[in-house]
Amino acid sequence: MSAARSSDAVRAGILITGTEVLTGIISDRNGPWLSQRLREIGVDASMIQVVGDRPDDLLAALRFMAAEGMALIVTSGGLGPTADDLTTEVVARFTGREMLLDARLESRIAEILKPLMSRWPNLDPDAILASNRKQALIPRGSTVLDPIGTAPGLVVPPLSGTRPTVVVLPGPPKELQPMWEMARRTEAFGAAVAGATTYTNSILRLFGIPESEIAETLRVAESEGIPLEQLEITTCLRRGEIEVATRYEPPAEGVYRELVEFIARRHPDTLFSRDGSTVDEQVASVLVGSGRTVAVAESESGGLMSGRLTERPGSSAYFLGGVVVYSNEAKIASADVDPELIGRFGAVSTEVAEALADGAASRFGASIGIGITGVAGPDGGSDEKPVGFVCFSVSASDGNRITRSTRLPGGRSDVRERSTTVAMHLLRRLLSGEGSIAASEIRAGVRAAGRRSS
Amino acid sequence: MSAARSSDAVRAGILITGTEVLTGIISDRNGPWLSQRLREIGVDASMIQVVGDRPDDLLAALRFMAAEGMALIVTSGGLGPTADDLTTEVVARFTGREMLLDARLESRIAEILKPLMSRWPNLDPDAILASNRKQALIPRGSTVLDPIGTAPGLVVPPLSGTRPTVVVLPGPPKELQPMWEMARRTEAFGAAVAGATTYTNSILRLFGIPESEIAETLRVAESEGIPLEQLEITTCLRRGEIEVATRYEPPAEGVYRELVEFIARRHPDTLFSRDGSTVDEQVASVLVGSGRTVAVAESESGGLMSGRLTERPGSSAYFLGGVVVYSNEAKIASADVDPELIGRFGAVSTEVAEALADGAASRFGASIGIGITGVAGPDGGSDEKPVGFVCFSVSASDGNRITRSTRLPGGRSDVRERSTTVAMHLLRRLLSGEGSIAASEIRAGVRAAGRRSS
Repeated sequence: MSAARSSDAVRAGILITGTEVLTGIISDRNGPWLSQRLREIGVDASMIQVVGDRPDDLLAALRFMAAEGMALIVTSGGLGPTADDLTTEVVARFTGREMLLDARLESRIAEILKPLMSRWPNLDPDAILASNRKQALIPRGSTVLDPIGTAPGLVVPPLSGTRPTVVVLPGPPKELQPMWEMARRTEAFGAAVAGATTYTNSILRLFGIPESEIAETLRVAESEGIPLEQLEITTCLRRGEIEVATRYEPPAEGVYRELVEFIARRHPDTLFSRDGSTVDEQVASVLVGSGRTVAVAESESGGLMSGRLTERPGSSAYFLGGVVVYSNEAKIASADVDPELIGRFGAVSTEVAEALADGAASRFGASIGIGITGVAGPDGGSDEKPVGFVCFSVSASDGNRITRSTRLPGGRSDVRERSTTVAMHLLRRLLSGEGSIAASEIRAGVRAAGRRSS
Repeated sequence: MSAARSSDAVRAGILITGTEVLTGIISDRNGPWLSQRLREIGVDASMIQVVGDRPDDLLAALRFMAAEGMALIVTSGGLGPTADDLTTEVVARFTGREMLLDARLESRIAEILKPLMSRWPNLDPDAILASNRKQALIPRGSTVLDPIGTAPGLVVPPLSGTRPTVVVLPGPPKELQPMWEMARRTEAFGAAVAGATTYTNSILRLFGIPESEIAETLRVAESEGIPLEQLEITTCLRRGEIEVATRYEPPAEGVYRELVEFIARRHPDTLFSRDGSTVDEQVASVLVGSGRTVAVAESESGGLMSGRLTERPGSSAYFLGGVVVYSNEAKIASADVDPELIGRFGAVSTEVAEALADGAASRFGASIGIGITGVAGPDGGSDEKPVGFVCFSVSASDGNRITRSTRLPGGRSDVRERSTTVAMHLLRRLLSGEGSIAASEIRAGVRAAGRRSS
């Protein structure tokens, strides 16, 4: 991964509170999400800090971020009704603002709690009203963000001076994310990030080349005169794909287009997305548009390929069914694999992958069948077919077919997951009308271990 | 979640470096992992901070943690060969130690690089040697941790005074984790955490009750005289299960046992693990021990149940196969569901769940069949069968069977994943010889929407 950075960006700190996150019991999803949203509006998240529910630690972190020059601090968590939930109070102390009861907010929260209280009749109504009141105490002069759950958010401007402004958001991502959008529309937020540049953010995706090749392409692009210094480019390997995320000021639009064309010329087979769409989105949209249907017969991936194809709402329009055929008997009985093929080539072979694809399509009456067989490990590998060796076939009722074998890196879970990515890309290629595929396609940071096409 | 905390614990800060993590491109796994390891040895991680590759931010974070009284700071990342990788240098500045070349380390790294260099013959050997030398420059007086990858780690004691000691580890979890164990065995590390108490850590798991009920149980336990102040108890809802993690000093062992018996008496049906084992581990171990086999016919969970049952190495010993039957035609053709059942009760019904379980078992010749059908959403819900309504059946060849329906909370991916948890628990109950199941079992923070047992 590499990234350029503008030096005069508006800087922000993200402050995650919660002992669950600090002790590693749950992992923080808000920090990365907020960081990406900040980046989109031209604000650099310079630090993400996780603290527990000790008010002293929270206050120290706020002061540290202010001292380091953050124009904006975004907090997540600590807004619940219990005594542990101290964020609002500490932010009031930090900004030097007194706490006052917001009557409108108090009745708003009471309204939200009404249906909850009728569902749990044993709860003590007085205790609930006290909690309710606690959540309606806010620092004077803050802008209230109406609750999505039961906790309100806040935008708290500095009492004096120009920074930092503190945006106070609840911890659950389902509440935090829409409330972040509310926060962005407030006047106080606008004032805090007034100096931020507006950027355009674009994403390219490539499959089947190592990250180092993209780094090399960027070097060559620069040496051939494309002024890449006008772009902030970040490359990253994710789930076997390369993501090239670029942020630029609008006048650099032409430079970005030049770069995209340059990458497309050097990597015509592997650049599969110019608009940030994922392979899953592309496959789903082509399937819906074409009325074609798919079915899966998988061994090594153990159900994950069907699981991935059914991830999206509406997938029942094109996903007809799947079989998970771990044993040889199951391959024969449930995917109509000829036992002779298994005997001659082994259960892990391109021949059996093809038979699985054909069996899946005919069993479920689908126009496309997908077959996957391989060695997920940690046991079962051999010299010829080591752990990570996986065979794929995608076959269409029009006679088109793509069959490949490859060796995937990593442990059992990596191999299982990565194999669904390879299969998705083979499906994408088949759907785009290609019945054969460049060898470079399948490398995915990996060596091709053999291939076969019919 | 709730947690007690001892006030005089040794405190540590975790400092994660790397622009990929800060910008939200990859999520940090090291912070939570290190926090849990620290907790095990009686050290409280008081803050986790993520910074980019700006040396000023890194230095400011180190100084902040020192000012906040951390006895130990553990850093991850920034040890690579490129100019961006600055952690060692900044730690030297922070501790006031000069950098010197460690000749033994230099030749150790050269040895590690040899096979890599022969694999990539186009690399410039001079550039590599320069990088190699950069990685062998360390603060005088540090203890070197031999590389697992190519980057060495360090334990850097304070130049004067007693704290903080800095443990410098590489970013990739596969390198960081074993090198953490090396670090722990060094003399410098032992000196830094000398005051830390040795704790015992134990985990209980419950399924089928809301977190508030466990909180109530803890309150009652305390009021009945169990001295819970001797235990640090953290409760957490994870994947639909309640985890009760307790840390205590060895003399409190008796108090902990008392608590476990108290919880077992109040929640006999829902406490399923006293030794921290997960439901997946328990199911796998019973299946391996008993020689019984399973097969799956799933609709709503789209392959994820098979995927979960095949997650573990060696699962082919008991998992025979699965079918993913999204369409009614597939349910009939591939899981032998009687079309009349679908007509009379609907595809989402306990009757069809039972037929799916039976069909799976007979198709694959397994001794246990699992059937899952439901409404994953966001579309397809009705008043009677809303989004999240899922029917399960687990049936054994000995005639034993558990069938349930429930309404699971959350969006499509939550419902899909949670349904595999419910099915795992029904399988566990069936394996433990129970053919019927308490209603409380299925609540999982959810209301039971109906049930049926035959």
